[in-house]
Amino acid sequence: MKTRPLILVTNDDAADAPGIKKLAGIMKKLGDVVVISTEQPMSGMAHAVTVNVPLKPRLLVEEEGYREYISNGTPVDNVKLCKHTLLDSLPDLVVSGINHGSNASINIIYSGTMGAALEAAIDGIPSIGFSLSDYSVGADFSHVDDYVEKITRKVLEDGLPEGISLNVNFPKNDKPLKGIKVCRQAKARWVEDFEKRVDPFGRTYYWLGGHFANGDTREDTDEYFLAKGYVSVVPVQIDFTAHHLVDTLSFD
Amino acid sequence: MKTRPLILVTNDDAADAPGIKKLAGIMKKLGDVVVISTEQPMSGMAHAVTVNVPLKPRLLVEEEGYREYISNGTPVDNVKLCKHTLLDSLPDLVVSGINHGSNASINIIYSGTMGAALEAAIDGIPSIGFSLSDYSVGADFSHVDDYVEKITRKVLEDGLPEGISLNVNFPKNDKPLKGIKVCRQAKARWVEDFEKRVDPFGRTYYWLGGHFANGDTREDTDEYFLAKGYVSVVPVQIDFTAHHLVDTLSFD
Repeated sequence: MKTRPLILVTNDDAADAPGIKKLAGIMKKLGDVVVISTEQPMSGMAHAVTVNVPLKPRLLVEEEGYREYISNGTPVDNVKLCKHTLLDSLPDLVVSGINHGSNASINIIYSGTMGAALEAAIDGIPSIGFSLSDYSVGADFSHVDDYVEKITRKVLEDGLPEGISLNVNFPKNDKPLKGIKVCRQAKARWVEDFEKRVDPFGRTYYWLGGHFANGDTREDTDEYFLAKGYVSVVPVQIDFTAHHLVDTLSFD
Repeated sequence: MKTRPLILVTNDDAADAPGIKKLAGIMKKLGDVVVISTEQPMSGMAHAVTVNVPLKPRLLVEEEGYREYISNGTPVDNVKLCKHTLLDSLPDLVVSGINHGSNASINIIYSGTMGAALEAAIDGIPSIGFSLSDYSVGADFSHVDDYVEKITRKVLEDGLPEGISLNVNFPKNDKPLKGIKVCRQAKARWVEDFEKRVDPFGRTYYWLGGHFANGDTREDTDEYFLAKGYVSVVPVQIDFTAHHLVDTLSFD
């Protein structure tokens, strides 16, 4: 009988990110752990898969109950590789992160961290993406341990409905956390502000930039609770259907 | 007073794909058209954005009521560039495709075509992704014209609710189309089957592969109606929240 669950830990910030080291460390307390991280930072890769080049995973560490891989693909590629090739069996849980930067509200749609979590949900594997509202490499993760462990233990015990993943976000560590709030994705967006430059050959090019705009004043959203000092947990789904419109739209 | 709507046409199969030429041709009947396509095929890029290299859009064609750009970024980058940089005003409609390959059911989550359409929806621009269940470069698009025009005219006239896009899929052209069905995303998935190879230096690498598995037997899904010979239209949303779980999950 299997006594310890098999937990896959992944991210989109590469192997040297403090966020994935923190997450792997917590997971070692809860089960056998396999870590697979991206070779390069892959922020903004969303649910992208790699079709034009082959994947070259490398095993870096192998110990009792712990293995560590690195691979050249996207976070979603990494989950796919583990699910059916690198691991002998499906993991009991996939956790992704801890991302350096918020994946609350519309950020989820661009997120490689959440891409990996959602990929697990497609196969019916319970999954959680963890993110911190602090983009810096030196981000302070010292306030998250108890919450990561509490949420993970609960999911290991109870599972999640099929096709569901959790999008967990932490406020920056500038005041004590107030608790956990299960809530909705805020209706926010990025307003693009491309930086226009001219290269030495006279050709115009643009760097993507922008500012975050949250016009959602509802008091039950992830952005609302993060601003109040709570950990936000949004249950998210792989079904994109706007079910409320299926019966009202017509093209006849 | 503006008499003709401004329609942005984009894709993930690059500028020479017959699908985008077909779509641009139909849109010219309905409004002023700006086309922006990817330099390279970008299938599987989902909602990815480019943060590590700058974007270099190039204007290829400029005529009365028609412009054509190509750019090195992802489909989502291309929509972002047009929304706030290359165009003087937001487009009235964004159409994406016609993709060479199905984006029905779970394919939407990997799709660059639908990434572009959803990016428009984030800014409240009505958008439609069109895809054909035929991956070949020489895919036959001769059966889609009337349906593309009908669906597009309807969206131009009525708009779409905020944050909503349409995921339109056509069966392969092997029998007459039966009509349009508004429906739900089927619960299907890809079962990975990586092809393992060894390079000349003895290192193992993998090519992503797999087969499509639809275990969804409901008779109101996109896969169901496509198999029956209908055009499927799934209204899709940028809100990932599983609202039915927000009040039932608890971590206290």
